[in-house]
Amino acid sequence: MSGGVHFRRLAIIGMGLIGSSLARVVRNHGLADHIAAAARTQATIDTVQRLGLADSVTTEAAVAAAGADLVMICTPLGVYSEIAEAMAPALEAGAIVSDVGSVKRTAFSDIQPHLPAGVHLVPGHPVAGTEHSGPESGFAELFEGRWCILTPGEDTEEGAVETVAALWRRAGMSVEVMDAAHHDQVMAITSHLPHLIAYTIVGTATDLGERLQREVAKFSAGGFRDFTRIAASDPVMWRDVFLANSEAVLEMLGRFNEDLTALQRAIRRGQGEVLEDTFARTRAIRQGVIDAKQA
Amino acid sequence: MSGGVHFRRLAIIGMGLIGSSLARVVRNHGLADHIAAAARTQATIDTVQRLGLADSVTTEAAVAAAGADLVMICTPLGVYSEIAEAMAPALEAGAIVSDVGSVKRTAFSDIQPHLPAGVHLVPGHPVAGTEHSGPESGFAELFEGRWCILTPGEDTEEGAVETVAALWRRAGMSVEVMDAAHHDQVMAITSHLPHLIAYTIVGTATDLGERLQREVAKFSAGGFRDFTRIAASDPVMWRDVFLANSEAVLEMLGRFNEDLTALQRAIRRGQGEVLEDTFARTRAIRQGVIDAKQA
Repeated sequence: MSGGVHFRRLAIIGMGLIGSSLARVVRNHGLADHIAAAARTQATIDTVQRLGLADSVTTEAAVAAAGADLVMICTPLGVYSEIAEAMAPALEAGAIVSDVGSVKRTAFSDIQPHLPAGVHLVPGHPVAGTEHSGPESGFAELFEGRWCILTPGEDTEEGAVETVAALWRRAGMSVEVMDAAHHDQVMAITSHLPHLIAYTIVGTATDLGERLQREVAKFSAGGFRDFTRIAASDPVMWRDVFLANSEAVLEMLGRFNEDLTALQRAIRRGQGEVLEDTFARTRAIRQGVIDAKQA
Repeated sequence: MSGGVHFRRLAIIGMGLIGSSLARVVRNHGLADHIAAAARTQATIDTVQRLGLADSVTTEAAVAAAGADLVMICTPLGVYSEIAEAMAPALEAGAIVSDVGSVKRTAFSDIQPHLPAGVHLVPGHPVAGTEHSGPESGFAELFEGRWCILTPGEDTEEGAVETVAALWRRAGMSVEVMDAAHHDQVMAITSHLPHLIAYTIVGTATDLGERLQREVAKFSAGGFRDFTRIAASDPVMWRDVFLANSEAVLEMLGRFNEDLTALQRAIRRGQGEVLEDTFARTRAIRQGVIDAKQA
């Protein structure tokens, strides 16, 4: 079904890790006659041109989006509203607007209200990434073997959903459709809380003073280095994720805190059985990750 | 300096991931005339024999340790006292006893009191590992490029320390000597707290109900999978680590909780600047890990 996906003009708004990786996929497979990129800074525009990632590149989302059959928004969530408002007049009836953000209700609250009638909104989230940012960090294989979640509204035309799904399948992803609110709840535990905790513990280590901090880096093979990798992710992107999904994150954080307090209590009281039972239980979910081929 | 290290009889007590990896190193480089292994279960003994990891293997630590010039204890911390007591009568004057445990004060509290005069205690901690356990998970390259920390007492003979250091250098490690209490503080933040937090969040996810749990595994590429890997580590080993290093872990956990509460507050109040500043700060420590070649 995905073999035939093709765009006359594909607009990518935001040429960071995800946007530039998608551009590489589209270019490699010849999925668009014209890739129109928009980027915020001149430095990014220069890099996009130097790497030949797009056929045209501009600072104006409206210019890139004009006449596009698909507009993919790949910016931090915090500028969705501004971008949607700016490009709305340039959108043609029948165009599809999609995004790659980590919080899906934001597409409905911040993009949908600005869209003219006849434009289809198909919010999406390719669950893939690295700790690196910017157009030079992108690569076409980023999406391979991962899941992309689409969260169309109930009334969204099925053809529009299928077009976006076909694009991500060409990038090597499996596609799943779910409700936006459910997506945001699943991501709160699988992605947002892990990032918050990694940022926290790396911050805690940063405050320990210079000698300890040097040793923290040196001896990080004991577990810490995985956290430093996660905590090196883009600060603005993640600021917006936590602001946009605050309710679900705070709910999961509450549960996490209860569980951590229980372990803290067991450590203070020397309750070895409580610790061992808890640690043994978590091996099962690792097996689930391996079975789901996401390890 | 490490070129000439050689043992007549090297005893390895505990043939899990670390013990069996060390056995492979010793065998590959011909560093001992005889490798005497001790293992707790018949299943492990069978595996050690099948893989040819030792010249002799027994369930009795005292039998393996008898006549050894180096005894390396590679068991969970909780059985140190019992093992030291059992093998003490078999130890010859001049023998070195070392270990690989993640809490170094335990070597002094649980091993030292049992040792006869003339036996040298050189506690050690090769900071390397994977989430896998058992003799089949070991491999000789496990230690390459990592740090080994030795924490000898003030009166320990220098030659004994150098012998243990030379062994770990042959395994590919850099060796650093420090005070046991300082080691335990550094590991509390670089290794023990990361493991506690990973166990906690994976446990929190496990309690979310079946549908969410399936989705957690499926969409774990968003950050969660790194935590599941850490949380798949050996439950008994880690139970003992938290019991043995409870004071330092609780101290670091207190700092972590304060920092997490500050971020929680910022999320609830929508303070984007606080979040962004915190997230930007943690990138620097990742650079430190990369500079220390531990990434």
